[in-house]
Amino acid sequence: MRIARILGTVVSTQKDERLKGKKLLVVRPINLDGSDRDDYVVAVDTVGAGFHEKVLIVGGSSARMAEGNKDCPVDTAIVGVIDTIDFTTPEK
Amino acid sequence: MRIARILGTVVSTQKDERLKGKKLLVVRPINLDGSDRDDYVVAVDTVGAGFHEKVLIVGGSSARMAEGNKDCPVDTAIVGVIDTIDFTTPEK
Amino acid sequence: MRIARILGTVVSTQKDERLKGKKLLVVRPINLDGSDRDDYVVAVDTVGAGFHEKVLIVGGSSARMAEGNKDCPVDTAIVGVIDTIDFTTPEK
Amino acid sequence: MRIARILGTVVSTQKDERLKGKKLLVVRPINLDGSDRDDYVVAVDTVGAGFHEKVLIVGGSSARMAEGNKDCPVDTAIVGVIDTIDFTTPEK
Amino acid sequence: MRIARILGTVVSTQKDERLKGKKLLVVRPINLDGSDRDDYVVAVDTVGAGFHEKVLIVGGSSARMAEGNKDCPVDTAIVGVIDTIDFTTPEK
Repeated sequence: MRIARILGTVVSTQKDERLKGKKLLVVRPINLDGSDRDDYVVAVDTVGAGFHEKVLIVGGSSARMAEGNKDCPVDTAIVGVIDTIDFTTPEK
Repeated sequence: MRIARILGTVVSTQKDERLKGKKLLVVRPINLDGSDRDDYVVAVDTVGAGFHEKVLIVGGSSARMAEGNKDCPVDTAIVGVIDTIDFTTPEK
Repeated sequence: MRIARILGTVVSTQKDERLKGKKLLVVRPINLDGSDRDDYVVAVDTVGAGFHEKVLIVGGSSARMAEGNKDCPVDTAIVGVIDTIDFTTPEK
Repeated sequence: MRIARILGTVVSTQKDERLKGKKLLVVRPINLDGSDRDDYVVAVDTVGAGFHEKVLIVGGSSARMAEGNKDCPVDTAIVGVIDTIDFTTPEK
Repeated sequence: MRIARILGTVVSTQKDERLKGKKLLVVRPINLDGSDRDDYVVAVDTVGAGFHEKVLIVGGSSARMAEGNKDCPVDTAIVGVIDTIDFTTPEK
């Protein structure tokens, strides 16, 4: 999975039946320091993510395992909203 | 999924039985500002996209979930025609 | 799918049982202007492609959907011989 | 599979039901000399790896074959802790 | 599939149950002229390949189609030992 931020919404009327009702968002993968990567992907939001939030995206066939995506022609899905990334090494 | 534009048609007589009757289009992924990426892919059109339209393409095994592609040797499919991409942040 | 040209044949005696009898070809993906890409892949030929022909290759799990590849450890297959690519925009 | 080292933990409250209870770690693929690659991925830890350990990560649908990941929207999993990499050529 | 050469062995005690007993090799993809690519991957050897041999590796879900890898968390497998690559164009 990768970390991304939401850029916008894709509006499409003429599309596969199984994409109807799905929220198609344009997301941009980001680096761990929060900077943008020079890339983007269109993902189906399955967790009700809000704009400006950092999200977790899953790719490939596993995107079809996300809630509501079974058997859908979807290769990327938003499966989580990220609260924080903790880089602190835990003490033992 | 990615956004692409249609460049042309692939004509192939000698091909896998399950590709017969399928519309094979050469598409070029584009950036969010509409500029071309230095890449291309051959995709099966499953939504009747027209030339010059921006389309949504899906890759990998999920391309076989697109209408009519079940069990076909297809790794990329056009699954939507894009009307607009809305980058406006919604008000809350 | 991508467009490639055939470079040669891979000869392997010691191999997975399910690869026996399969024609393993080295192919090079090409650009749309016919120039070579700096890459190659080994693909199973499933359509009887000839040397010097441009072929259509499919990757990932979909390569196993090509004729004769069911349940085989194959991630790329040649599924078509390309006659032409038509870049002319059709009139409406 | 690739070799990576663990950088931190992703904390996410709002996420897919099937990700609940899973340990989401940020890992960085490394080169064979131990140096960092300029990349990262979020992986589900399935073997109880500790921080500072070198781990083996698996990607794609095979990440769902790891212990506990069946049918989960997961595309990368940690499936081993690496003790050593032996570059010595065995004698015959 | 790609062509690679074997660099070494990965030793891992703490790992997924389904990886137990599998031979995990570090392999480096090579170019067609035999030179190294700047990359590596950890692959499960399923054909008893020897060190210094050129091997055929398969990636993605198809790696699970290799002998003994069914339902295993494996994304790359060695499925053949390469004798030669024949670049000679056959006469007709």
